[in-house]
Amino acid sequence: MNGAQALLRSLLASGVDTCFANPGTSEMHFVAALDAVPRMRAVLTLFEGVATGAADGYARMADRPAATLLHLGPGLGNGLANLHNARRAGTPVVNVVGDHATTHAKYDAPLQSDIAAIAGAVSGWVRHGALSAEIGADAAAAVAAARAGQVATLVLPADVSWDDGGEPVTEPLPVAPPTPVAPDALRAAADALSSGEPCVLLVGGDATRAAGLAAADRIAAATGARVLAETFPTRLERGAGVARVDRLAYQVDAAVQQLAGAHHLVLAGARSPVSFFAYPGKPSDLVPPGCEVHALAARAGALADGAATAALEELADLLAPGTTARLAPAARPELPTGPLTAASAAAVVGALLPEGAVVVDESVTSGRGLPATTAGAPRHDWLALTGGAIGYGLPAATGAAVACPDRPVWCLQADGSAMYTISALWTHAREGLDVTTVIYHNSAYAILRMELQQVGAAGALGADGARARALLDLGGPELDFVALARGMGVPGVRATTAEELADALRRAAAEPGPHLVEAVLPPPVP
Amino acid sequence: MNGAQALLRSLLASGVDTCFANPGTSEMHFVAALDAVPRMRAVLTLFEGVATGAADGYARMADRPAATLLHLGPGLGNGLANLHNARRAGTPVVNVVGDHATTHAKYDAPLQSDIAAIAGAVSGWVRHGALSAEIGADAAAAVAAARAGQVATLVLPADVSWDDGGEPVTEPLPVAPPTPVAPDALRAAADALSSGEPCVLLVGGDATRAAGLAAADRIAAATGARVLAETFPTRLERGAGVARVDRLAYQVDAAVQQLAGAHHLVLAGARSPVSFFAYPGKPSDLVPPGCEVHALAARAGALADGAATAALEELADLLAPGTTARLAPAARPELPTGPLTAASAAAVVGALLPEGAVVVDESVTSGRGLPATTAGAPRHDWLALTGGAIGYGLPAATGAAVACPDRPVWCLQADGSAMYTISALWTHAREGLDVTTVIYHNSAYAILRMELQQVGAAGALGADGARARALLDLGGPELDFVALARGMGVPGVRATTAEELADALRRAAAEPGPHLVEAVLPPPVP
Repeated sequence: MNGAQALLRSLLASGVDTCFANPGTSEMHFVAALDAVPRMRAVLTLFEGVATGAADGYARMADRPAATLLHLGPGLGNGLANLHNARRAGTPVVNVVGDHATTHAKYDAPLQSDIAAIAGAVSGWVRHGALSAEIGADAAAAVAAARAGQVATLVLPADVSWDDGGEPVTEPLPVAPPTPVAPDALRAAADALSSGEPCVLLVGGDATRAAGLAAADRIAAATGARVLAETFPTRLERGAGVARVDRLAYQVDAAVQQLAGAHHLVLAGARSPVSFFAYPGKPSDLVPPGCEVHALAARAGALADGAATAALEELADLLAPGTTARLAPAARPELPTGPLTAASAAAVVGALLPEGAVVVDESVTSGRGLPATTAGAPRHDWLALTGGAIGYGLPAATGAAVACPDRPVWCLQADGSAMYTISALWTHAREGLDVTTVIYHNSAYAILRMELQQVGAAGALGADGARARALLDLGGPELDFVALARGMGVPGVRATTAEELADALRRAAAEPGPHLVEAVLPPPVP
Repeated sequence: MNGAQALLRSLLASGVDTCFANPGTSEMHFVAALDAVPRMRAVLTLFEGVATGAADGYARMADRPAATLLHLGPGLGNGLANLHNARRAGTPVVNVVGDHATTHAKYDAPLQSDIAAIAGAVSGWVRHGALSAEIGADAAAAVAAARAGQVATLVLPADVSWDDGGEPVTEPLPVAPPTPVAPDALRAAADALSSGEPCVLLVGGDATRAAGLAAADRIAAATGARVLAETFPTRLERGAGVARVDRLAYQVDAAVQQLAGAHHLVLAGARSPVSFFAYPGKPSDLVPPGCEVHALAARAGALADGAATAALEELADLLAPGTTARLAPAARPELPTGPLTAASAAAVVGALLPEGAVVVDESVTSGRGLPATTAGAPRHDWLALTGGAIGYGLPAATGAAVACPDRPVWCLQADGSAMYTISALWTHAREGLDVTTVIYHNSAYAILRMELQQVGAAGALGADGARARALLDLGGPELDFVALARGMGVPGVRATTAEELADALRRAAAEPGPHLVEAVLPPPVP
């Protein structure tokens, strides 16, 4: 057995049976080994950023890692943005990066680069495989490291793949149980929440699933604390039958207002809140002056058995023993009519979101109405752009659909962000994935128009600011997402009214396989 | 004047007047400053890999750097593959990476990452801007560093952009003249070449322009040495009126054969030849056993005034004082007819390549016939995939067309590689660039099918190898590049015969702006 076969068998034995791949020459023995290890599902992507985003989306829904297969430093570079998102989300990813044969490294061949430096920027664990006899154990160690909620990168030299003597691991390595809540932290949080002073309970990580939200709601009901979820949760369970939670706003002024007056901020799986970007004259640290911060549980990975949920449940049993969580009632907006706007598009999504949907949300500014219109939709999962690196939506939808073949995936996708990883549509078609992509087509980097104001740069513009604004404009030429989808085998349709959007979404739900709807929105103002 | 304005003015004063940009929030003051500094041309790309590849293509043709504008670590990551290519090509690139405000860094906000580590992997020079008063000087230093033939990365924190007190540089920093050839190296090369023993003169870097090739040819004519160019030159001048040179083969066996029997290998701007990848049982070092290597001039950047050309001219004056270079005669293949094949497509290109064309070659396996069919075409430049990171062609064509608005750019592009940076087509349309893209559509990663054999992995396949081969197959679903082009505003047409390809290329030449021709080829064998 060669190293590649041992690696694949060890991944399988460790619970990893899916690999999102974009291979090159140095990975050919890995590719060849797929025939010897048929239980490993290899999903081809046309760009590495699709592979890494898919691995993130997959793990958020499967609660276990997928592997990637990337080609050398440049392939890793192409995958870096979505690995960044995975890192920030705390999702487990086993990132396999092929490298030149160990004997070839000293020649500094054209594709040689400093893989360790690039990998280190996004990985919690990096190992350079050295021996075929050990690569199986390396793979098991990578899976165990990933399961702690991080990107684990295993560099796989070509000769370690092709040499004989591979020794597969047959059992997964043990994974450390969730860290129990520290008694002091539990006590401090309980004291704060029962002090009678204004409290905010900020939930994140694994605590944005139904169980964590229920525990948080019980605490809120018993103590009067307000619960907020972090701005871009890794996986937010929501809809009818789940305790409802508002998210901390992205915009600094709005977030400051949400937290204003709090004397205590209790963190359960969330990090202490900071602004996404710095703005002149606005705070980076969003904790109100004088507010005390209590870390009940650290920001952990996306795994459902996480420490934050357990800590919240323990805290709820302490503070709210007889209280039950208030679950969101079923409620849908009316189907709107007339020309499509961001608001009416959000209402259509709320009216039609199917039972058990997985929503991948990279709608950016066009999606502002969605939290309200979907709050009472049938129970669903909401995956957000946790790390802020755009080009996440279409790839993550790929992975979510592979992880959940029986659930509809709705990818709510801004137009500008879609173009970073548009080739994910091809993988949707190739794998016959049940992904319905809504492209919010407003022909602009609308968020940057907003940010140009927010950072005070608009004041630095010349008389008309035409040259600056041109750089935020996607209207010349107009992108045609229906043509792009057709070019990659995905049936698409254009919607300019609410009725057309609703029709298109109903048709997509009625047919198997991927669909794309280009929702044409008015250009943003200003 | 704020830092961003000082930066832009300093770039201009240093000779950089073009910026390929994909900005984000932290770069909004740079964007706003474009109105105050209108001589800076900003070219919007929809993906950072297009911006960096365009900067590479631009510099190869303009002989001076363009700037990029990238958003934080993830944006740099997206641009990394083409920066790798630029690094390997020795092209000057001024890579501007926006960063969080210096005051914001300590909060580890979601988009924070280790920019220095990522930048270090591709840059010969990295500086983190710290003060608005110094960012102008930083920019001038970045340009000077880039002009030495490398990627120079300047990290630009948002507050360094927006703070007042910017001080623009008004003069470019001096650039070191090319290193003169060392007398010992000249002597050794001359002795080897006049020894009567079999010699190969390997040219690369700046020596693959007409002047370097002419000098190399004079030496060959006088001494009987064979001249070869490196496998993937940064910029190869060729065609009628230029001294013809063959390139060292990509495939190891063929390269070994080309170098067999050489007792001396003289390097002029080329590195000592190594195989692109390692293959079991084949050499990585392509220098024949017992062959002596003489480094006349090191691999230098792409700048035309390079040291390798000067060294070759000095050597030619020494060894071949009365000899003139043998220039390629004008010669075109007949226009073929019938179903399109890689061979007939190459003949069509050779028959129609226009005077003064810039050819960007990412044709991979489909382009094997091109060197022969275009050898006598009107004089043109040939840009190759020097670093081997695919996704280079369409972006580099963007930059070449911006650098040379009066020259036709032909982008000869393999289908699989095209999909990494397909959104470059939108920038072709937006800027009205005279780029004619030929997509070689054989529906496979054909080079990987070949490599699967080369690395001996085919033998490791199961009975039919179907699962492995599926990962190298792009046929399900079939990509439709005409639809993709239309989706981004580029008129496209499909060609299945040689006549159709010729018609499409003629029409593209007759109309302004970008065009795409999908050249449908038979699937590769096996």
